[in-house]
Amino acid sequence: MYLENIESPADLKKLTIEQLSCLADEIRTAVIERTALNGGHLASNLGVVELTIALHYIFDSPHDKFIWDVGHQSYVHKLLTGRQKLFHTLRKHGGISGFPKISESAYDAFGTGHSSTSISAALGIAEARDRLNEKFKVVAVIGDGALSGGLAFEGLNHAGHLKKDMIVILNDNEMSISPNVGAVSSYLSKILTSDFYKKFKKETKAFLENIPRIGELVARIALKAEGSLKGFILPGALFEDLGFNYIGPIDGHDIMLLTETFKRIKEISGPLIIHVVTQKGRGYKFSEDDPCGFHGVGPFVKETGVSIKIESSCALDDTKSRLQKLRPCSSMSGVFGRALTSLAENDSRISAVTAAMKEGTGLSCFAEKFPQRIYDVGIAEGHAVTFSAGLATRGLKPVIAVYSTFIQRAVDEVVHDVCLQNLPVVFAIDRAGLVGEDGPTHHGVFDIPLLRSIPNITMMSPADGSELAAMLELALNLNSPCAIRYPRAKAFDIDLPGFKREIALGKGALLSDGSDAAIIALGNMVLPALKAAFMLREEGLHVAVADARFIKPLDEELILGLATRTGKIITIEDGSIAGGFGSAVLELLNKSGMENVSVKILGIGDEFVEHGPQALLMQQCGLDEGSICNTVRDFVSKTATVKKAG
Amino acid sequence: MYLENIESPADLKKLTIEQLSCLADEIRTAVIERTALNGGHLASNLGVVELTIALHYIFDSPHDKFIWDVGHQSYVHKLLTGRQKLFHTLRKHGGISGFPKISESAYDAFGTGHSSTSISAALGIAEARDRLNEKFKVVAVIGDGALSGGLAFEGLNHAGHLKKDMIVILNDNEMSISPNVGAVSSYLSKILTSDFYKKFKKETKAFLENIPRIGELVARIALKAEGSLKGFILPGALFEDLGFNYIGPIDGHDIMLLTETFKRIKEISGPLIIHVVTQKGRGYKFSEDDPCGFHGVGPFVKETGVSIKIESSCALDDTKSRLQKLRPCSSMSGVFGRALTSLAENDSRISAVTAAMKEGTGLSCFAEKFPQRIYDVGIAEGHAVTFSAGLATRGLKPVIAVYSTFIQRAVDEVVHDVCLQNLPVVFAIDRAGLVGEDGPTHHGVFDIPLLRSIPNITMMSPADGSELAAMLELALNLNSPCAIRYPRAKAFDIDLPGFKREIALGKGALLSDGSDAAIIALGNMVLPALKAAFMLREEGLHVAVADARFIKPLDEELILGLATRTGKIITIEDGSIAGGFGSAVLELLNKSGMENVSVKILGIGDEFVEHGPQALLMQQCGLDEGSICNTVRDFVSKTATVKKAG
Repeated sequence: MYLENIESPADLKKLTIEQLSCLADEIRTAVIERTALNGGHLASNLGVVELTIALHYIFDSPHDKFIWDVGHQSYVHKLLTGRQKLFHTLRKHGGISGFPKISESAYDAFGTGHSSTSISAALGIAEARDRLNEKFKVVAVIGDGALSGGLAFEGLNHAGHLKKDMIVILNDNEMSISPNVGAVSSYLSKILTSDFYKKFKKETKAFLENIPRIGELVARIALKAEGSLKGFILPGALFEDLGFNYIGPIDGHDIMLLTETFKRIKEISGPLIIHVVTQKGRGYKFSEDDPCGFHGVGPFVKETGVSIKIESSCALDDTKSRLQKLRPCSSMSGVFGRALTSLAENDSRISAVTAAMKEGTGLSCFAEKFPQRIYDVGIAEGHAVTFSAGLATRGLKPVIAVYSTFIQRAVDEVVHDVCLQNLPVVFAIDRAGLVGEDGPTHHGVFDIPLLRSIPNITMMSPADGSELAAMLELALNLNSPCAIRYPRAKAFDIDLPGFKREIALGKGALLSDGSDAAIIALGNMVLPALKAAFMLREEGLHVAVADARFIKPLDEELILGLATRTGKIITIEDGSIAGGFGSAVLELLNKSGMENVSVKILGIGDEFVEHGPQALLMQQCGLDEGSICNTVRDFVSKTATVKKAG
Repeated sequence: MYLENIESPADLKKLTIEQLSCLADEIRTAVIERTALNGGHLASNLGVVELTIALHYIFDSPHDKFIWDVGHQSYVHKLLTGRQKLFHTLRKHGGISGFPKISESAYDAFGTGHSSTSISAALGIAEARDRLNEKFKVVAVIGDGALSGGLAFEGLNHAGHLKKDMIVILNDNEMSISPNVGAVSSYLSKILTSDFYKKFKKETKAFLENIPRIGELVARIALKAEGSLKGFILPGALFEDLGFNYIGPIDGHDIMLLTETFKRIKEISGPLIIHVVTQKGRGYKFSEDDPCGFHGVGPFVKETGVSIKIESSCALDDTKSRLQKLRPCSSMSGVFGRALTSLAENDSRISAVTAAMKEGTGLSCFAEKFPQRIYDVGIAEGHAVTFSAGLATRGLKPVIAVYSTFIQRAVDEVVHDVCLQNLPVVFAIDRAGLVGEDGPTHHGVFDIPLLRSIPNITMMSPADGSELAAMLELALNLNSPCAIRYPRAKAFDIDLPGFKREIALGKGALLSDGSDAAIIALGNMVLPALKAAFMLREEGLHVAVADARFIKPLDEELILGLATRTGKIITIEDGSIAGGFGSAVLELLNKSGMENVSVKILGIGDEFVEHGPQALLMQQCGLDEGSICNTVRDFVSKTATVKKAG
């Protein structure tokens, strides 16, 4: 009954502190109900309800700037900043995004999605403010998990040096997406289990009464002078050594404490860290019990917390076709995890590395079976790669499981530490291609251009689950760098009589022959390509379909053979056209002097793709079987006409 | 007289401590003499003479593993590990590299070149050791400047968590390449100016006598028990909070102290940081006075420290041609710096950002004129980009000057923080293309494939100095992300009558017409292309030459026009062929249905290019005027034959 009247933070400010607590309950209900229907990031938002309310209650957004690190915890912020009526469209195509976006709202000071960017961005905003003689507060809200990212440290290091007025709220729930790792995390835990914090919890009121109104004076000094509060300040020495003033830890669910603290710190200048302790998943029994499981969820039954199994939109309709055998209850990530675990049984050198994505990348089973051979390095993709390079120099066989969008964070490490030294590190690139509702920050569409120009790397993409397993085995025997890209998708096996799955270096497979044109399909595009070709056959067009398998090295014999035979090649990939797989095929044809071949490249054009259901986005990009069918038909008829005319 | 007898560290171990000091002098002389002749990294090597001797004296390389962060300080290590007889080939083509390389020597445990990788690599090596039940020590030597890189922090954070036996030697010379920035740097300075250190310097002997032989016990605890040494340990609290045991600071030029310390710490387990204080440029008057100036140097006169001006090997011989007017005493970096400074005079929003490369990127003049508008963020490329994105959201116009090889470290930040939000950040990408003696870790050959697939970015490359200045002006007016790539080269202006330098978005320039074929040359390839075309003209071949100027968006009208008119296109770029500029031209021709055009792509093939003189490397890659001339002649005659035959 309060929430519905809040159209902007101005309405929030009319409420009393007591009413804010009721509002918090209403917000929790709204967030739970919406994510139960739309899916999304539940637990992280339930953890920041009071924190977000308190921030908007005390600060003046959009005049003051909030930067939400990662940004998946911004639902509460969106509810309070004029997007309540659109909240039902959360993560829906054409609706509001699951992350902050400058283009969506003036209240979103900086777009996020990837971790650890907020301190750097906030510092830039603070510096620009001072340069332009503006007056506002800049607040970065960053989770403890995101602190393990080197970028966050680079930001802290520079901020401590510039001494700008800025506030970093360290939202400590002792958990990133997986439980945290790293020395900083242990350090924070030590603070929380120390006497300081225990003592403090009892003395909240005394604390508030003791913070003097100090204006431009640094709070820390004043506080240090207060003998009784000395212990309370000491825990943040690490941050103080980095040039920040540290306040905390404070209870992130006590609205009165939060608002009073924010009121006082508004007067403090210089870089400031407020260490706030929150509970991920707070206020919903099921997410309190399993905050990891409720990190990012699909739709679920509110009353039971049980997820609703919707047929994955990316799995093509298999009632229409006998081409595709679904693997029950499995995803491509699951296939990867099981295949790796199985291979690891016979080779003790095989090791798994993840940057805080053990569950997401399917490594849970590996971790259970080989707890000594998996390394979760925290959110630190660059380190994951260089650490793996170190392992590889000594004869281990590291496999880094990483989402395509996050390998962008470690390109130099792939070039400089792995490929230049030709070390046998395997990159299992999950979530390659369009991912759906997480949108443009998370689509994995650049990995091919980013990686294929690097010497020494082998790069593959499997058409189905069985190929993924076979490719992983090959990759582990190459003794050189290798990347395998595969989509966010249900796992299936192509059910084509005579389809051979033996994988050999640089060899694709011709799945279906034809003389009118040839489709060279990559990875998850093989199945829709096959279906399109079968549809076209009914129209009398005979289009060959090849499973490319290799992005690098290309199967030159297969591709050039098809090019010679049909004169018309269509390449299809779930990734950026610019510099991508089709571009590599053009380079091959060019190198081979086959200019007379007509080529049509299907893939993702030169713009960021918004969020929405994966199948819909694929369709919009012309990558579903129907679109492929139409494009191929047009292409074959047009090039035929041209040939006749010429 | 000691040095010449050292063929491996075993010979070193035969010397007495007193003899080691004489050896240090001999090594200094050898390093000074060699860099005076060959150029190289002088100051950093002079700083680590005693440190390197002591490491090899006490540890057992190659059984024990040394990882040299950045690696430009590895000359002393190379002299002591069997490469003395090859030392005259340092940085010469076919000779030993200026950086550690696994392929060069078993003593080089991990190849480096870029900063901040050593802790991650060392941790990987230590973990693999323990997994494989091997026994050896792992030592990472990292400068204080490299500590500002997020990767170093990610490594520390993970190492503090895994608690592996590893030693990090913090080589603190209070200076990275430029004087250091950042809170960690201030923190280290505070340690050095504190009473602890001053007191300690007097008590070296007492210290040594007081460290007990503690075997597997952690030294810190033992030391803390010694009341008199308590203060000595306290300074490293920052590192202790990260899970490391800290020892130091100790004098990095006192061989006795270093060897005794290393002897004792060999017995200590767990992650350990030894804080060693060294003087960059030590023992050579000129580099002591100007350690920055002697960081990376070309050949110089040993007696005076004055650099020997050799005609830059990349500046083509201008006695042969009137095409090229050299700009006296200027480099492309210098042109950039002056152009930016000049533009900044009329627009106070223009700001410069560098990651510890102020001098190298030509920003010194800007820094002098606008000290409040330049941000040296330390070695932290990712932060440089996201910080700039923050500046841009508030209306400033940041220009990030960065070497091509180092923008590899910030690809995700370019995608996620700049381009996705379409923010007006300008990337001035210096040292694009082959850089010469620094070799494969530093060649800038991947920036085109890395950047051109990202939506919203504009990407250019200037043919000469004047175009660089004009492009910078355009870039600052685009109000969207823009990258300009230019080489490590002397600045010149193309001296062609009627050559127009007005730069318009997406427009190249036809410099010389011809009907037999058309060269579309990019950036620094325009001049050799012109020269080649003039040579061919004397043979009766009329080859058009266009200055592409834009990698993205391509000048479609110009390129398609030339393709239609000549039917034969040659693209030339100083970068990777895979996914590069020529590849973009292929995509354009394909998109435009111009399959019948013959295209030849010149650029850098699919392998890492070794170190050597820039001009020689260009020649080996077929990118000098002579090679271009031959390639074009062959291409035109072959394609003509094919056409006739077909």
